[in-house]
Amino acid sequence: MVDKILVCNRGEIAVRVIRACRELGIPSVIAYSAADRDSRAVALADEAVCVGPGPSPRSYLNVPALIHAAEKTGADAVHPGYGFLSEDAQFASVCQDLGITFIGPPPDVITAMGDKTNARRAMAAAGLPLPSGSEEPLSGATEALERAAAVGYPVILKAAAGGGGKGMQVVHRADDLPAALAEVQQTARTIFLDDRVYLERFVTGARHVEVQVLGDNHGTIVHLGERDCSIQRRQQKLVEESPSTVLSESMRAEICAAAVTGAAAAGYRSAGTVEFLVAGDEFYFMEMNSRIQVEHPVTEVRSGIDLVAWMIRVASGERLAFTQDDIALSGHAIECRINSEDAARDWAGSFGRLERFVPPAGPGVRVDTHGFPGYKIPPYYDSLLAKVIVHADSREEALARMDRALAEFDCAGVSTTIGFHRELMSHATFRAGTHRLDFVDRFLTESGTLREAPVE
Amino acid sequence: MVDKILVCNRGEIAVRVIRACRELGIPSVIAYSAADRDSRAVALADEAVCVGPGPSPRSYLNVPALIHAAEKTGADAVHPGYGFLSEDAQFASVCQDLGITFIGPPPDVITAMGDKTNARRAMAAAGLPLPSGSEEPLSGATEALERAAAVGYPVILKAAAGGGGKGMQVVHRADDLPAALAEVQQTARTIFLDDRVYLERFVTGARHVEVQVLGDNHGTIVHLGERDCSIQRRQQKLVEESPSTVLSESMRAEICAAAVTGAAAAGYRSAGTVEFLVAGDEFYFMEMNSRIQVEHPVTEVRSGIDLVAWMIRVASGERLAFTQDDIALSGHAIECRINSEDAARDWAGSFGRLERFVPPAGPGVRVDTHGFPGYKIPPYYDSLLAKVIVHADSREEALARMDRALAEFDCAGVSTTIGFHRELMSHATFRAGTHRLDFVDRFLTESGTLREAPVE
Repeated sequence: MVDKILVCNRGEIAVRVIRACRELGIPSVIAYSAADRDSRAVALADEAVCVGPGPSPRSYLNVPALIHAAEKTGADAVHPGYGFLSEDAQFASVCQDLGITFIGPPPDVITAMGDKTNARRAMAAAGLPLPSGSEEPLSGATEALERAAAVGYPVILKAAAGGGGKGMQVVHRADDLPAALAEVQQTARTIFLDDRVYLERFVTGARHVEVQVLGDNHGTIVHLGERDCSIQRRQQKLVEESPSTVLSESMRAEICAAAVTGAAAAGYRSAGTVEFLVAGDEFYFMEMNSRIQVEHPVTEVRSGIDLVAWMIRVASGERLAFTQDDIALSGHAIECRINSEDAARDWAGSFGRLERFVPPAGPGVRVDTHGFPGYKIPPYYDSLLAKVIVHADSREEALARMDRALAEFDCAGVSTTIGFHRELMSHATFRAGTHRLDFVDRFLTESGTLREAPVE
Repeated sequence: MVDKILVCNRGEIAVRVIRACRELGIPSVIAYSAADRDSRAVALADEAVCVGPGPSPRSYLNVPALIHAAEKTGADAVHPGYGFLSEDAQFASVCQDLGITFIGPPPDVITAMGDKTNARRAMAAAGLPLPSGSEEPLSGATEALERAAAVGYPVILKAAAGGGGKGMQVVHRADDLPAALAEVQQTARTIFLDDRVYLERFVTGARHVEVQVLGDNHGTIVHLGERDCSIQRRQQKLVEESPSTVLSESMRAEICAAAVTGAAAAGYRSAGTVEFLVAGDEFYFMEMNSRIQVEHPVTEVRSGIDLVAWMIRVASGERLAFTQDDIALSGHAIECRINSEDAARDWAGSFGRLERFVPPAGPGVRVDTHGFPGYKIPPYYDSLLAKVIVHADSREEALARMDRALAEFDCAGVSTTIGFHRELMSHATFRAGTHRLDFVDRFLTESGTLREAPVE
């Protein structure tokens, strides 16, 4: 087993990783920014090293400072969490060169999956279905127009180096394509320092269904079922649940098998997610996330398998202690992401002091959060404040449990999305499980409330 | 289903019942004492009615006030929780007469099981093994001496109307018996208004193993496995776990079957617990608790069955939705009772304001508590502040998880037993699972810390 882990992240995922370390008996070191000095992660870790000031390029993305922190504290492994450096092949590679275990897949797998055109090619070669589109990055507007005409509108433009829902745009008419291409290229250049853009047919009326995979260094790779993440706003997931309400048993088996095939073809190790679009009886590979995801607890509560602990164990060379047949998924799980955002003001980030903070608890409720009473949310980072995860026998009971949990969440001092989620849990379309990726566009009003579903 | 439930209790169990009500869509009314005006139960319930001042005889035991509260708010059912009126057959009977559903077993079953000599007789008739002893209450010291001589010392004197670990005393020599009998009779008269006392052989070196049962009004009764509650101090449970480390599979099957046989013979309905002593390959019926117990979450996390919700459902006439064969128990669960007590000062109750209160959370951890930052613990009631329940694949992982959870429990303002539990989780005897009911007597020092186990 690795001896000491440097946690290169913040917020709830840093707390999550520190908990796994402690349960495994591995000392943890939190690498924190000066803005996070009073954070829960710093309080809970065995050691803490400040790696720079608030802004993440100078702290959580500061590779030399992080490597120095690992060396200074004798950490022989790093856990990158999600976001920040979690899908940075160069960081993984530097760690590898210095003999520090990067808790995640090997650098070449991160590179291969991080380049979306390359990932498309590799998954197509492995036999996974893809929406028709460009195999290679577009050379310019002329080629884009030709390809779009060939696959048919609407199309979606995507940055080859993109991820996290950034650098993509749907185009409905040829007239809009050149300008949209220029815009996505500009975004890609700015965010990802890589302006390659490709195009594929936009699957309308789809659901986002992803499959959790987990592999060890000895050739075993398993799936832990799917998560449906179709409640999104501006490509950001708000709610995740498992099982999906739209998969038949045969389709579930097919999509999960496809995820394992794809991950195995990519030489995948550690925890990862293969994302698909599902429309009717068809599913299409979208991308692979080579890291732990925000929504991993949904899978943990259904499977009883501790994904973060297993990331650490397989990174230490341990074999998976279970085969595909051993994995039993029970009941229904839902996660709501509670963001410190003001839904009435275009979901603007709401930063400040948590004057009161009593998260829900009790049977079938898990809350992963870094919040606590008196915590001052710094303005530099994303707005995820807490994840409320419920587990129950049926979807109906899980919805009731989530509504109960949200109702008792006592949080004052900042605006949160608790109110949005409470409305969602009683929305007829969501309750019926017939929502699609356009749910938020269809039903969210400017004041941040949800419109009722039309009577069908 | 019942329409509205009056919760006749306080603290964490009141919060627990209110949560179940909300998830079932049943409005809840909390009957509270003036001392509990600012409690979490009052904040969470749909309605709240003050039933009297702080001292429980004038509020939580005040039957006329409780009945009035039910009638005033239109509650057609009461949930008594544990303690207070939960095993008061007269209260259950008054409710029944007024057409108010008492969420628990029928009054005659409460009466039959509440009288310990009667329960002994009934369970012996059903074929359950009992420690040898008196079938009838003792007429006086002479009879006590005769019977003790017949069964052999040590013996234990127990109040026939006793329960909750009160009104019992172990006697090792005939010389001590008359005085002990007088003392137990006096206690029994004071606490239970009933001075009948019986005697049985005291089983030395035993473990406390109890079986959770659940019955509906249609003749179905199932068990949900056992809980081992052998870590006790002065007959009060401190830690409960499942499965027990001392049962073989065949003995587990036998003891669980005996519990179902006994409960069925008693005409049991609702959730209840059959308590046994286990010594070597033998087990002996001790008593039946005709109510929900503090430690019920241990069973809930292993079974995925919501016991409090099922108490409400079966009281509403619903049939159990599962048979014995459907019940699958997974992994290992441990509960630590966190009391606001000062272990260094003979575990004296510690009352005051919770200056900080951040309970543990994350994977496999459930906390049932009524505490919150700023809560002032009133001096009138018991000292249970929180129950930390963990669930993991194995006992070893559950111990690690509990240690992690206790380590992150941030509570300031009152003394708690968190420190005791942390020591316990690393104590060699407890870790080995070889502890017995005398564990606390053997290892607890006067300063409240644990002595190390002798090297064996």
